[in-house]
Amino acid sequence: MDRIKKQILSILSSGNISIWRIIDFQDASLPEFFKKIMELEKEGIIKISDGIVKLTNKGKKLAKKFVFSDYKCKLCNGTGYRMAYNVKKKYESIAKNRPKPIEKYDQGYVGTNAILRKLAFMMERGDVYGKIFVAGDDDLFSIALALTGLPEKVVAVDIDERLIDFINDVAKKYKLNVEAYIQDFQYEIKDFHGKFDVFVTDPVETLPGIKLFLSRAVASLKGKGCAGYFGLTTLEASRKKWFEIQKMIHDMGFVITDIRRQFQVYPDDGSNFFRFQEKLPIVKKLQTKSDYNWYKSALYRIEAIKKPVPLIKGNVKLGKAIYKDNESWATPM
Amino acid sequence: MDRIKKQILSILSSGNISIWRIIDFQDASLPEFFKKIMELEKEGIIKISDGIVKLTNKGKKLAKKFVFSDYKCKLCNGTGYRMAYNVKKKYESIAKNRPKPIEKYDQGYVGTNAILRKLAFMMERGDVYGKIFVAGDDDLFSIALALTGLPEKVVAVDIDERLIDFINDVAKKYKLNVEAYIQDFQYEIKDFHGKFDVFVTDPVETLPGIKLFLSRAVASLKGKGCAGYFGLTTLEASRKKWFEIQKMIHDMGFVITDIRRQFQVYPDDGSNFFRFQEKLPIVKKLQTKSDYNWYKSALYRIEAIKKPVPLIKGNVKLGKAIYKDNESWATPM
Repeated sequence: MDRIKKQILSILSSGNISIWRIIDFQDASLPEFFKKIMELEKEGIIKISDGIVKLTNKGKKLAKKFVFSDYKCKLCNGTGYRMAYNVKKKYESIAKNRPKPIEKYDQGYVGTNAILRKLAFMMERGDVYGKIFVAGDDDLFSIALALTGLPEKVVAVDIDERLIDFINDVAKKYKLNVEAYIQDFQYEIKDFHGKFDVFVTDPVETLPGIKLFLSRAVASLKGKGCAGYFGLTTLEASRKKWFEIQKMIHDMGFVITDIRRQFQVYPDDGSNFFRFQEKLPIVKKLQTKSDYNWYKSALYRIEAIKKPVPLIKGNVKLGKAIYKDNESWATPM
Repeated sequence: MDRIKKQILSILSSGNISIWRIIDFQDASLPEFFKKIMELEKEGIIKISDGIVKLTNKGKKLAKKFVFSDYKCKLCNGTGYRMAYNVKKKYESIAKNRPKPIEKYDQGYVGTNAILRKLAFMMERGDVYGKIFVAGDDDLFSIALALTGLPEKVVAVDIDERLIDFINDVAKKYKLNVEAYIQDFQYEIKDFHGKFDVFVTDPVETLPGIKLFLSRAVASLKGKGCAGYFGLTTLEASRKKWFEIQKMIHDMGFVITDIRRQFQVYPDDGSNFFRFQEKLPIVKKLQTKSDYNWYKSALYRIEAIKKPVPLIKGNVKLGKAIYKDNESWATPM
């Protein structure tokens, strides 16, 4: 029996469970997970009804070997970090008026807890004091950064005019050191090249899409020693895709210094992209609505060991290929 | 001012601090750190006496920009994981009689807490149920694994006969599913090839050394989907060296799925390698004895995306180059 099936049996040995909680517990991508779960059902090991998965008697016998214990730290949700609390209240009061995610750009935002933990982690690394480029900012991370008062300057760019206006309005109202500009990454804007110490982005997860996002982000950095942060799921990016992305990172002149799994949680708080979940392939496949915060991404930190080399230069036209591939089962169709 | 100096000023803004605590807080390798700290002293920003570092008045002014907050989760020490407590007592009672580390093989063991957290993390990944190859085992991790009763089989190999005898004696006494064999990694032993689901190792950190350790470990795996765990410090391996190691990992057919910084702590408990610390280059350079558990390694998890390809095959003769290079400042000279 393969590792993913062992993980599934392991968590089921603790009782009947929502399929969304199982998705969160295991390591495979959504298409791989769906295949495994269908196989387990066909083999008479599990039963699924109304989104709840149960072990059959045959399954119970098999699962005995795979004891379940939940060892994630409860205090930090397995992230290892506390939140930078001092900016929490202000960030939350600002973010509650955020523009709601729209389908067209595959938007969706990371929850406040993860924002404040990422901030804490970056502070510990000494990565918050210089000039910071936030490439795509549905998370409003630029605002969280600026609220600390630590960065020399924060620049956020996004394709969505609503976000740019929102960030600039907030910056003005609260006198924050943030500037926001509209940018479609298909177009190169040389004004930002070589100006920043750190970039932060949450790229789309298709290979052409992430290559484009990382290339634009990487082009913004000054040189050797500069760092980048981005999120990557295991849900819409299989291990094979991670491998290709890691090769890109190396080819761009970066070493990976950290990969912290499930650091970023996208909460289903009524406003997030779960609003249009009936359009997500995984929801259609499972024929059941999400009842658990299962969409999480790993936090990558990368650092330039030489002058960064963007893999894509100049203007390109990618269209829908930016957002969709055969693993994007949590992207609206 | 560069990032590492900002980290140093940041922690010093909280007061006078042992240089070993500063080493633990910052991200540079030992030679790089030593250079930075000497520069800061020369520039009149810090003063060092008896291993305690203080900011000068000039330093205090500069440090104001780099506020210090300790955001690591206190409950899990920044690892994100609790310990697999059920084997704690037995593991500790066994490990207290362990052979003490000897200089010749650059030995040193990870503390019980980290052993039990690594175990928890591997259990969550579904990586403890099959056949597990422990390549070098001064940590006695094979015993911790076997105490869970979960692996199908555990095989440990080490160059040190004392350890092999100890592990085999324990296995016999406690009826554990562990076998241990003497092996110098300079010699290839084909008996172990292609037999295991998972490997665990804590390699030396020179490039020829880690290439050899990982090659032997990787050769032990069955194929695609198999996983490997190893520790790597930032202290004796600079980011440039990490880059070379990550390229090796890719060349061997693996993707990196996790890098959790400072997951493994090597405690100064009176028996560990700190016993001969006067022979460590960093102790000589700083002219002060260690008073803090500063030697930690990041936990890597890697997974085969195709049939693993060891970079070194057949017998080789590396000699001292296995243990020593110009970054091995925590290795006895």
